[in-house]
Amino acid sequence: MGFFYLFLEFGVYMKIIDIIEKKKKGGSLTEQEIKFFIDGIMNGSIEDYQTSALLMAIYFNGMNIDETTWLTKYMVESGEILDLSEISKNIVDKHSTGGVGDKITLMFLPLMAAADIYTAKLSGRGLGHTGGTIDKLESIPNFKTDLSIEEFKEKVKTHKTAIAAQTLSLAPADGKLYALRDVTSTVDIIPLIASSVVSKKVASGADHIVLDVKYGSGAFLKTAQDAEKLSEIMVEVGKRLGRNICAVISSMNQPLGRAVGNSVEIQEVIEFLKGNIESDLKEITFTLAQTAFEKTGKFTSKEEGFKYLEDMITSGKALDKFKEIVESQGGDISIFDDYTKLPQASIKYEVKAEKDGFVKNIDALRIAKACKNLGAGREKKTDSIDYSAGIYLTQKYGEPVCNGETIAVIYTNKEDSIKDAENLVLEAFEISENEPEPISLIYKIIH
Amino acid sequence: MGFFYLFLEFGVYMKIIDIIEKKKKGGSLTEQEIKFFIDGIMNGSIEDYQTSALLMAIYFNGMNIDETTWLTKYMVESGEILDLSEISKNIVDKHSTGGVGDKITLMFLPLMAAADIYTAKLSGRGLGHTGGTIDKLESIPNFKTDLSIEEFKEKVKTHKTAIAAQTLSLAPADGKLYALRDVTSTVDIIPLIASSVVSKKVASGADHIVLDVKYGSGAFLKTAQDAEKLSEIMVEVGKRLGRNICAVISSMNQPLGRAVGNSVEIQEVIEFLKGNIESDLKEITFTLAQTAFEKTGKFTSKEEGFKYLEDMITSGKALDKFKEIVESQGGDISIFDDYTKLPQASIKYEVKAEKDGFVKNIDALRIAKACKNLGAGREKKTDSIDYSAGIYLTQKYGEPVCNGETIAVIYTNKEDSIKDAENLVLEAFEISENEPEPISLIYKIIH
Repeated sequence: MGFFYLFLEFGVYMKIIDIIEKKKKGGSLTEQEIKFFIDGIMNGSIEDYQTSALLMAIYFNGMNIDETTWLTKYMVESGEILDLSEISKNIVDKHSTGGVGDKITLMFLPLMAAADIYTAKLSGRGLGHTGGTIDKLESIPNFKTDLSIEEFKEKVKTHKTAIAAQTLSLAPADGKLYALRDVTSTVDIIPLIASSVVSKKVASGADHIVLDVKYGSGAFLKTAQDAEKLSEIMVEVGKRLGRNICAVISSMNQPLGRAVGNSVEIQEVIEFLKGNIESDLKEITFTLAQTAFEKTGKFTSKEEGFKYLEDMITSGKALDKFKEIVESQGGDISIFDDYTKLPQASIKYEVKAEKDGFVKNIDALRIAKACKNLGAGREKKTDSIDYSAGIYLTQKYGEPVCNGETIAVIYTNKEDSIKDAENLVLEAFEISENEPEPISLIYKIIH
Repeated sequence: MGFFYLFLEFGVYMKIIDIIEKKKKGGSLTEQEIKFFIDGIMNGSIEDYQTSALLMAIYFNGMNIDETTWLTKYMVESGEILDLSEISKNIVDKHSTGGVGDKITLMFLPLMAAADIYTAKLSGRGLGHTGGTIDKLESIPNFKTDLSIEEFKEKVKTHKTAIAAQTLSLAPADGKLYALRDVTSTVDIIPLIASSVVSKKVASGADHIVLDVKYGSGAFLKTAQDAEKLSEIMVEVGKRLGRNICAVISSMNQPLGRAVGNSVEIQEVIEFLKGNIESDLKEITFTLAQTAFEKTGKFTSKEEGFKYLEDMITSGKALDKFKEIVESQGGDISIFDDYTKLPQASIKYEVKAEKDGFVKNIDALRIAKACKNLGAGREKKTDSIDYSAGIYLTQKYGEPVCNGETIAVIYTNKEDSIKDAENLVLEAFEISENEPEPISLIYKIIH
């Protein structure tokens, strides 16, 4: 071990140990120091054990908005930046901080395309209780998410939208940092979450960025206050880096929609686009779409926007767009008329209510854990996912249940996982005597 | 990267990431968790980047006395533990937290041996502004510090004392941790300093441990409060691990004695033992020796103890003992009568006072920095030391000086380092109009 010097253009020797010490003592890092740090991560002159010490110091002493912006900027510049300007100067990107049953992207993209708004969506694989958007799409036979940059751009140009698996060439410094944070208990640091999200979005090249920020039992952030803090930082950093950005903050205490898993969620998306609309999915999807309408100047009034979105569904245009996307990326479109073409679980097990009443809550985290046990999620990047595994909630918030009535269906190929999953589902359901008040999921929109 | 599991005997899976998270959130680690951590460092199952994240979390959230004791215990058990019981059950060890001109060990050991008290001293090489005790001894031609365990024990048995370079086989976990702390800005953590010091002393096998804890400009710890905190922890941990331990806290704002360097300090030690006693060296050495007398039951009264120590010097017995040590370890004993046999600097440069007055302060850190520039210290373990380089303070605290009078002599072989050293010496000397009050260096003794 030794000391690590780099000679910077302005003639100052910097040492990472001085930067760690400065942050440890509560100081604010300069733009040069942050550039030095990211350069050092990329060229290997800064060791992982030094980076993790700095990350832990940041956990305790934070980073101000300037530091967060510089960190984001140099993470963006650590790799390729997609140039989509030849396609349009009015392209929308969407990012969700992740939730249980979160299939919003799959309704959002066809609706945007149907509304003649370009979207270009790069998405990560899920590392959690259930799959990510890419995993869900890959449950469609032959659906290809591994697109080259050229293919991706070409599809956006032709179909107004495309969705591809995030490649490492975008913001690679973020990838390196994240891998280290994951094994050093330094994930839950709001300015670092903000730079991670925003750096990938900025590098993805869109002009407008719509962030879907969730809080609650089934989300990474547990409180609305943390979600608001994160949103404010992400929006400010995004703006400083020249993006038209906003964040919609919503509750993720209960799963979104009724389906949680991979192929079961695809089926629910198709049903939504066919007009069988779950109110919570509508609230989130339409609100995000409306912010995109506002950003791109399509509609400024919510009434107009929502009416337009309903028309896109009623007319079948949104469904056609989703079919077009699936077909364009090689997926089997016979699934639209025959759900048995999607991966099917060998076991369907019905969970029954143990008393009469109304559903007052369905704990998202317990449902997610049950899904993971059933095979729907992964713990390590190399784990495989059972696309057919999942849970369908036949009863949702506010709905009446009778003792012995089915409240959820478990889909799995692992018979020995059923008992635990059933217990988790039963624990997740809170049944009350009285009908609960209707709730709104949207907490706040940060522009 | 992945997760690191070890199956413990009581059937619990532990993961280092959970331990990091616990400490990050302010929790106290259990004995099993600390054992798991030290085992993981030793067997390589815990990565350096995880260790450094934990160290930084400890910087912010500390460790209580139980955690510190367990950490020390398992660091001791990570390697060999010297068994000196065949020699005596009343062996004394001494450790200094380090200072400028700190040659106390070299007077302490002969005095102990002259008083028929066994000491066994393993010492580190200096990594700082001037050499450590081992470096100072190595400035004596042919002095051998690289003793095997067997040679070391044999010499202790025969001569009542020996001094050898610390080997890696004692508390190797501490060595690994320290190397990492050094490059991750996690050195200044009091419970970790305490376990580092105490683990090495406990592994060294002595029954009684006398700690010389220094604070001030020329010490690692800047305040008496920090020194007291560290001392209390070290004494408590040492006691819990079955050692008879105490700590003498003293000020290190000014260099100890007049000589700072390596061979110049050996010369000052010989002069001290010949009866030319500097009062500050006497205060520290005698106080430490008296605590050892109390621990071993030799003398309980300070008056008796100090009188005995003076007799050992006046009678020449302490000097003879030092000669015996030097001879036993292969050193050239002709240095005792002819200092020119010690390494000699080619340049002797006198620094002159720039005004009349009294010496009110000599800043230890500036003197240390000057010595390092002159070649007396090292920055990396592989750097070589110029044993002849150093500074001799012809004027000390409270002494009168006249404008133009020599206040210090610079010894070096590097002509181009003189100017800076002279400036540092002049900055170090604070000359006041009035004679300052006499000061006592000892702040407190913790039993």
